[in-house]
Order: sequence, then structure tokens, then C-alpha cells
Amino acid sequence: MTGSTATKRPRYGASSTRSRFREAVNDFSGRSPARFAVLIFLALVALFTVLLSLPVASAKGTATGFADALFTAVSAICVTGLSTVDMATHWSGFGLTVIYLGVQIGAVGVLTLASILGLVISRRLGLRSRLLAIGEADPSHAHSGISGSSQAVRLGEVGGLLATVAVSALVIEAGLTVLLFPRMLLSGIQPDKAALQSIYYSAMAFTNTGFSPDPRGLAPFATDYWFLGVLMLGVFLGSIGFPVIYAVTRAIRTPGKPRWSLHVRLTVVTSLVLLGGGAVLYFALEFSNPATFGNLNVGDKAFQSLFLSTMTRSGGFATIPIDQLNGSSMLITDMLMFIGGGSASTAGGIKVSTIAVLFLAAFAEARGNDSVEAFGRRIPVDILRLAVSVVLWGATTVAVATIVILQISGATLDAVLFDVISAFGTSGLSTGLTASLPDAGIYVMAATMFMGRIGTVTFAAALASRHRRQLYTYPEERPIVG
Amino acid sequence: MTGSTATKRPRYGASSTRSRFREAVNDFSGRSPARFAVLIFLALVALFTVLLSLPVASAKGTATGFADALFTAVSAICVTGLSTVDMATHWSGFGLTVIYLGVQIGAVGVLTLASILGLVISRRLGLRSRLLAIGEADPSHAHSGISGSSQAVRLGEVGGLLATVAVSALVIEAGLTVLLFPRMLLSGIQPDKAALQSIYYSAMAFTNTGFSPDPRGLAPFATDYWFLGVLMLGVFLGSIGFPVIYAVTRAIRTPGKPRWSLHVRLTVVTSLVLLGGGAVLYFALEFSNPATFGNLNVGDKAFQSLFLSTMTRSGGFATIPIDQLNGSSMLITDMLMFIGGGSASTAGGIKVSTIAVLFLAAFAEARGNDSVEAFGRRIPVDILRLAVSVVLWGATTVAVATIVILQISGATLDAVLFDVISAFGTSGLSTGLTASLPDAGIYVMAATMFMGRIGTVTFAAALASRHRRQLYTYPEERPIVG
Ligand SMILES: [K+]
Ligand SMILES: [K+]
Repeated sequence: MTGSTATKRPRYGASSTRSRFREAVNDFSGRSPARFAVLIFLALVALFTVLLSLPVASAKGTATGFADALFTAVSAICVTGLSTVDMATHWSGFGLTVIYLGVQIGAVGVLTLASILGLVISRRLGLRSRLLAIGEADPSHAHSGISGSSQAVRLGEVGGLLATVAVSALVIEAGLTVLLFPRMLLSGIQPDKAALQSIYYSAMAFTNTGFSPDPRGLAPFATDYWFLGVLMLGVFLGSIGFPVIYAVTRAIRTPGKPRWSLHVRLTVVTSLVLLGGGAVLYFALEFSNPATFGNLNVGDKAFQSLFLSTMTRSGGFATIPIDQLNGSSMLITDMLMFIGGGSASTAGGIKVSTIAVLFLAAFAEARGNDSVEAFGRRIPVDILRLAVSVVLWGATTVAVATIVILQISGATLDAVLFDVISAFGTSGLSTGLTASLPDAGIYVMAATMFMGRIGTVTFAAALASRHRRQLYTYPEERPIVG
Repeated sequence: MTGSTATKRPRYGASSTRSRFREAVNDFSGRSPARFAVLIFLALVALFTVLLSLPVASAKGTATGFADALFTAVSAICVTGLSTVDMATHWSGFGLTVIYLGVQIGAVGVLTLASILGLVISRRLGLRSRLLAIGEADPSHAHSGISGSSQAVRLGEVGGLLATVAVSALVIEAGLTVLLFPRMLLSGIQPDKAALQSIYYSAMAFTNTGFSPDPRGLAPFATDYWFLGVLMLGVFLGSIGFPVIYAVTRAIRTPGKPRWSLHVRLTVVTSLVLLGGGAVLYFALEFSNPATFGNLNVGDKAFQSLFLSTMTRSGGFATIPIDQLNGSSMLITDMLMFIGGGSASTAGGIKVSTIAVLFLAAFAEARGNDSVEAFGRRIPVDILRLAVSVVLWGATTVAVATIVILQISGATLDAVLFDVISAFGTSGLSTGLTASLPDAGIYVMAATMFMGRIGTVTFAAALASRHRRQLYTYPEERPIVG
């Protein structure tokens, strides 16, 4: 709305063709940043589908079918890690490199996108007062409100944010590689292969993708606590979200006691509660399941429970056969995958802060408080409504995809719900169903990944940015609920 | 809180022992009406468990085991209709009469309870201004605020409401009996048996219980559209809720164009959308399933789809083998059972107005409106928070029960989720799992029925009635969600 009002006004300072082009991009991305983001990601998916279809991308040197190429492209760009082909044997070195690049671009892209949306949400009051200013004040004021205001998210800012996100990702991944490389050397892997695998695993961990370059998956490292610990660290850092990483980095650099924002506190506390709660539940429910942790000693059971809990909410690495989990553990995994990680993170799902806001609202209601509060701060009601919207969007996506896949595959709800939520929450764990689906099912799963990853973020953004002034108020009336 | 403040003040007008007793009951029920309601229903369950345990209650003349007696008592009082024994052959005439009474008492009891809570919700502003008055004004004013105010829900009012609800239930059930009796006579059933069965079916339809007195269930009437139509009418009237029935009755009696309340409009529109949507989905998904509608002609398919859609949200009668439904239809049934019927109805679930408020909030957010609106009325934010609380309570109950039953039974998620949501939403449809559970599972299912039926209503009430004045406000801060 802001942009569409502004385009009808004379432009100042757009003197060269280059700056005219910049203005045009700014206008389009500013007017409908959500649509702009969806288009960019669709273009990325198309490009990577073409690249992965090429004969040179497959190990056999033959062209990969459209459904499998599309699915792998979406799975990489959306850092999901689900696959319809054997990731370790189907692709050539070129194919694996394309996937590696897709994962990095997808992760950094969504991180940046989501961070911008975070800015939009946290700046909304500013955005609205700008709207008011446009409606009332003189053209130059309105114009400066659009392209000059400190409240606006401009292309320059996006570039800066993109650079910061990319640098953070590369620094963290380099750190993980340094931790993995000597360990792989010690395991007897050749230096060049160890280097490549360290780099690959670091990217797959931090981006929360969970692809493994080894046909045996993580089996060779299933009892290697150093290796698994580094993967957990990478996945956790990726899933906590860029705003938290940025806040921690700033706190380390700035002397004095740091002042943590509500978002950082909510995200960290909820993540730790889910991490610990998940681990305790897996430990209890799988204690005597010989197909998973049953035959391990108590210490190993505890470690593997924590590893599984870290991986479900989006990491996607697994040391145990997922389809052998008890039904109870699978349902817990479904719930954790649906919640996912932090906002503006490489994890998917509806995000931990969303579920936290809903529970805080229920607590406020239970305590009879008029406002939703956390850590000495009041959460405004539009954030609650945004949280409700995101959950309804997620639940509707999962329900529709599950019903369609149930009808297409005739498989049990256990398997279908698991793989659909894994796609929606970009977790990448699988019961094996995804790899056995016919093409129609593969397209539905690809759409679910895209809706879960790009959809959720842009949906939230589209809603958050389009508030308008209401000129009338209806009389209040209270329906009975419950 | 109102009551506890008031008890410390001198009482006026409590002159006789009888009125002292009334005051005491008023105080307890007024201070914690939610706890009072739960106690009453627990006492009812205990009484009916004892009655159903008696040898005289079973057809064989032997005592029924505790788990089965308790489960049947809870299933009757909560009008759920799930069973662990064959309802048509296990019980004697005395047993069936006890169950009949349990269903009627349970239905009228919860209807009354929920109607009171509806009053509390719709009167909350009054309740709060009373709280303020108590805090500031003189004792006599405060006292009149407690026992004399038109805002308070008093024992006398409860009695009047109970009588209105009971009379409405009996009138509607009598009407259904009149519609069923001649049809059963025409089917060649003996007059005395036809009379008993008409009365029994009418009660089972209006109370949304769904028990059948026939070992073959509804099979003898599976193609009898008159019979099935009357059942649908009864179930629909029961599930729409007492506030709607009351409003319609008043509108018929009062001349002139009726003014429908927001609650009535929301409930009727959402119920019809769910009814029609469910029927269309069942029709499409079961079109070629030979075990359900596959072999019927298109007209019969449409009728049976509508019948199933009416019954899922809480009726519990079935003309087809529920365990033969496609997985997709079962998941749709899960969702419809979870939503349930209208507030203060004989149906269970989180209620249609609850889900309507959540979707209205999401629509408001999508349109960028500051307030949640429907039918030219604004829905206040505490109603949204109450809706969020009820859904979280329901989802948590279902999740915990499902995880426990999955672990106890080792059955598939399809069956476990279905039977657990059927228990929570007091639907009574079953895949057959409930009847095959060990005692531990039966207790969990009984608890789920109680939590779903009594819990949801009292939970909503407890929250709605305990608002307090806040003397401080925290600064606002906006976390990122989604
Ligand atoms: K993943
Ligand atoms: K029922």
C-alpha cells in the first residue's frame, strides 16, 4: 500500500537509468515483498531443477526425471533433506556440488528474508505512522517517508543484511569444519575426502538440511560422540535463528551487561524446554525398544535421546531407523517437527516463539491477566493474532497434504503424517514413505516443503505488513466459546 | 475471588437455617463454580459406576468388572457412546434403564452447566465492574453486588435454567419419538418394543450419545431414510446448543423480525459449513471404496455422506463399518470430532464457535484489521484468548492420551488418534480399538472422555470468570513469530 501510493507522486533524485532501475525494484519489492520473495524462490527452484536434470549431475551420466529433479531442488533450496533418490549414490560430484550450493543459497536466502520480515514486524508501528503521514502530509514528506525514512527496509539494507547473514553462516560453518576435519582424519579417512566431507557435513548441519554424502548415512559415526556433538552444535546454532546469533555476537563485542530482547529470551527458553522435554520423552518411551535405544546402556540412551531431540525439530540427521520408533515417539516427533526452530533460522515449522506466544496467552487467560506478558514485557494483541494465523496456516497445509497423500498412497497415518510434517517443518526425517511415492505424491510433498519453508515466512510477513487504519468500529458482542 | 472477598463481610438477610444452608451452597458454588461442577459430575460417575456394577444390571446376572462399569458410567454421563462391552447384549433391562437415565442426567446437566458458563462469559464485563465496586464502595453495596445483583448467577437462576433445559430436552425427545414410533410399527416391530426403542433412540439422538439397543446397531435401518433422517434431526438439534434453541423458540413466540445474537449466527453458520463440507469430502473420498459407499448409487452416496457428516461431530451413530473408511476420511473425521458441536450443547469437542473465532482472527489479520469482526459485531480480545486456551487444552489432552494409548496398545496412529479424539469429542464412533484395550487403556480413555466433556466446559468457565484488575502495565515489546 505504501508503495502504490508513492508511485503516483513525482520522484526526486532518480537521475540515472541505474537508479531508475533500483527504484523500480524497490517499488515492486516494497509494494509486495512477500510476492517478490516467493518469485525469487520459485526462480531458484526452477534453475536448480534444470541443473539437477542434466545428465552431468547424475553418477550414471543419464538425465534425472523431472519429478526427482524438482523434488531434490525444492528439498535443497528449502533445506529439508527429504529425498526420493539415494542422495549418496544417485548424484555425481557436479550434482552434489549443485545441491551444496542450493542448500547454502536457500539457507542464507530464507534467513535474510525472514530477518527482513522480523524487522517489518518489530517496526510495524513505524510503518503505520508512515502510512498516516502519507495520507496527511505534503508530497516531499511522504516521499522521504518512503525512500529516506529510517523505518523503511530498503534494498541497501537488504544487501547489508544479506552480507551479514552470509558471513555469519560461513564463519559458523568454517568453525564446524575445523572441529570435524581432524576427527575424520583420525577415523582413517583420506585427507582430501575428509576435507570435502567436513565441509559438506558442516553445511548440512548449520543449514539444518541433514543430507549425508555417505550411502550408510551416519552409521559410521553412530557412536562417535565428538562427531555427533559437533553436528548437534551446528544444527542448534542454525535452528536458534539469526536474530539470536546476532544478539549474542553483539553482546560479546559490547562491554557491560547485555540487555536481551524479549524475542531472544522467548526463543532460547522455549528451544531449551523443547530440547530437554523431547529428550526426556524419547528416553522414557524408547527405553525398551530393541530396534532403537533398547540395547544401549543408560548413558548412551540419554545421549541418543538428546541427539534425536536436537535433530527432529529440523536437523534431519538420524542414527537410528526412524520407522522403528514406537508410535508414541513418532507422534512426539510429529509435534516437535511441526513447531520447528527459531524465527529467521535455518529450521522450519511454525517457530518456537509462535507456540510460546500461544501458551503465554493461555497462561494470561488462566491467571486472569488482561495482557499477555513474558520477562517483564507485554506482548501486543496483534502478535497473538499473527501467531494464531501462522498455526492455522500450518495446520491447514499439513491437513490438506496429509489427506491427499493418504488417498494417493493408501499408507498408514503414522507414516503419512510423519513424512508430511517432516516436509512442512523441513525436518527431513522419513519413515521411508517419501521415497516410495508415485509422481503425484512427490509433487504434493514438494509443494508442502515449499509452503512450509517459504510459505510460512512470507505468509507471516504479508500479514504483518498490511495493517490499515480503520475508520469505524462495530459494537462489541461476546460469543460463547468452549 | 468475588465470593472469597464477600465471605469476610457481614451477611444481611440470612435469618433461617434453610437460607443459611442456601447461602453456604451459593458461596461454594459461587466461589468456585468450576470445582463445584466437577465434583457434581464425579459424584454422578461414582453413583452410576456402583449401579452398573450390580449383578442386576447385567443380562447374565453377574457383577460387571470395575473398569467396564466405570467406563460405561463415564460414557453415559458424558454422552459419549463409546463402549468396552456389547451395549445391546451385556446389560439387563435395569442396566439399560440406568444407562438411559445416566445419558439424560448427563446431557441436561452439562447443558445447564455450559449455559451458566455462557452467562458468565457474556456477563463478564458486569462481573468485573462488580469486582471494582467491591474494592472501592461500602459493604452494603458490595453485598448487593454479590447476592442481589442482576449480574450474578444465583442458585435460583440455576434452578430455573435447569428446568428450562430439561423441559426443552423432553419436548424435543418426545417430538422425535412421535416421528420414530409409527415408522417402527410399520417395520413390523411389536408395539411395546417399538415404543421402548423409539424413546431410547430419541434420547440417544438428541443427547448425541449414539448407543443402539440393537445388537446389529443401525444395520436394520441402514437404508431407511425416514428413520435416519429423524436421527439426523435429533442429533443436529442436540449439537447446535441450548442458546441457539432458546433463541429460536423465543423468536417463534415473539412477533416481529428476530434479532439474532452473534453467538447464534456464528454457531449456525459454522455448523452448516462443517456439515456441508464434511459431506462433500466424504462423498469425494469414499466414492470408490466398496467397503463403505462404493457400491451405492450416487443419491445414496450423497445421503450417507451427509449422515456420516452429521454423526461425526458427536452423534456417534454409524451405518457403515468405521474401520473400513479410507485413511483420508478417518483424518477428516478426527478433525470434525475435535471441533464438535455448539457451545452448551449435547455435543463435545472444542465447539464450533471456538474454531470460528480463531479463523475470524486469522481473517482479520489477513485483511489488516485491528479488530476481529463478524456479522457487524466486534469480538473482544479476551474471547480470542479464551478460544486459544480451549484449543490448547483440547490439543494437549488429545496428545497426552494418544501418546499413552499408543504406548499401551502398540496399535497404529490411525486407530488410536481416532478413538482418543472420539472420546475427547464425545463422538462415540470407534475403529474397534476401545473395546480391545487392557484395563490401563480403559482408564485413560475414561479420563479422556471426562476431560473432553466436563473438563473443556469447566476449564473455559474457570478461565472466563477469573479476571482481575491489574495495577501495573509492562512496557510493550514485539517478538518475531512465524
Ligand atoms: K532438514
Ligand atoms: K456421542
